Amino acid sequence: MRQRPIVAAQRTAPSRVPAHVARFIRSARIAHLATADRSGQPHVVPICFACDGKYFYSPIDEKPKRTAPTKLKRLRNIGENPQVSLLIDHYEEDWSKLAYVLITGKARIVQRGQRHRRAVTLLRKKYPQYRRMAIDTRPMIMLTVKHITVWLAR
Amino acid sequence: MRQRPIVAAQRTAPSRVPAHVARFIRSARIAHLATADRSGQPHVVPICFACDGKYFYSPIDEKPKRTAPTKLKRLRNIGENPQVSLLIDHYEEDWSKLAYVLITGKARIVQRGQRHRRAVTLLRKKYPQYRRMAIDTRPMIMLTVKHITVWLAR
Repeated sequence: MRQRPIVAAQRTAPSRVPAHVARFIRSARIAHLATADRSGQPHVVPICFACDGKYFYSPIDEKPKRTAPTKLKRLRNIGENPQVSLLIDHYEEDWSKLAYVLITGKARIVQRGQRHRRAVTLLRKKYPQYRRMAIDTRPMIMLTVKHITVWLAR
Repeated sequence: MRQRPIVAAQRTAPSRVPAHVARFIRSARIAHLATADRSGQPHVVPICFACDGKYFYSPIDEKPKRTAPTKLKRLRNIGENPQVSLLIDHYEEDWSKLAYVLITGKARIVQRGQRHRRAVTLLRKKYPQYRRMAIDTRPMIMLTVKHITVWLAR
């Protein structure tokens, strides 16, 4: 710890994200989405995501047959409690290079329409894996950012 | 999606974790801890952790001067609401190799004593970085497992 000067977490308005933070967000292949049910029990899953500069999007692409999309825990939680957090972080053994960006906001489920189509386009551009998946016919999580906290060791 | 046969998430009692899942947990360098405040706002941070086979431990090692440990959001949340989730996951571009283990349970803060000492020993064994850090004098998050959900694409 003494070897590790710390820049304390900085809370930033979404419109004022510095360029290096925006790059960090864009380049991340994965994020971690935390939701909570109405009792306050938190839940966290790894997600693929895209960002159009304002909203974050994450498709529902899992368990196509075993579980109906609406039964997925993250979607049930968002239905009960739209408050979410989304974390994008970087780990390596040199802890002076640790970093994370924590996005706090509200999520809703989008089933179709212009935003849904935009999200599908962005996701298929970012992840070739989605080009052969039917994310265009499945629900999409859409996150409206309230604030962003940036933490950098260094 | 059609290219991706899915094994649905399996919920397991802590005492019945298969050996390959235990290995996956042990080998992970990082996990993601989700907490929520009393209003149900979720929060998620990357953490270093150790497990003694029963409890998970994560030290408070950040912001030694700028923020008192008790003011850290994760600790305030645990004080308001001990329900937590801890996620250990693996990402790679071949999505048939995705995996995660979601640990649901209750957290409390341990300041000293036998469990605290045990946790410090485990953490310093796992992370050489902690050997020169004063985690022995700082609070430790201790997580009691309620259930474990294992998800494997493949």
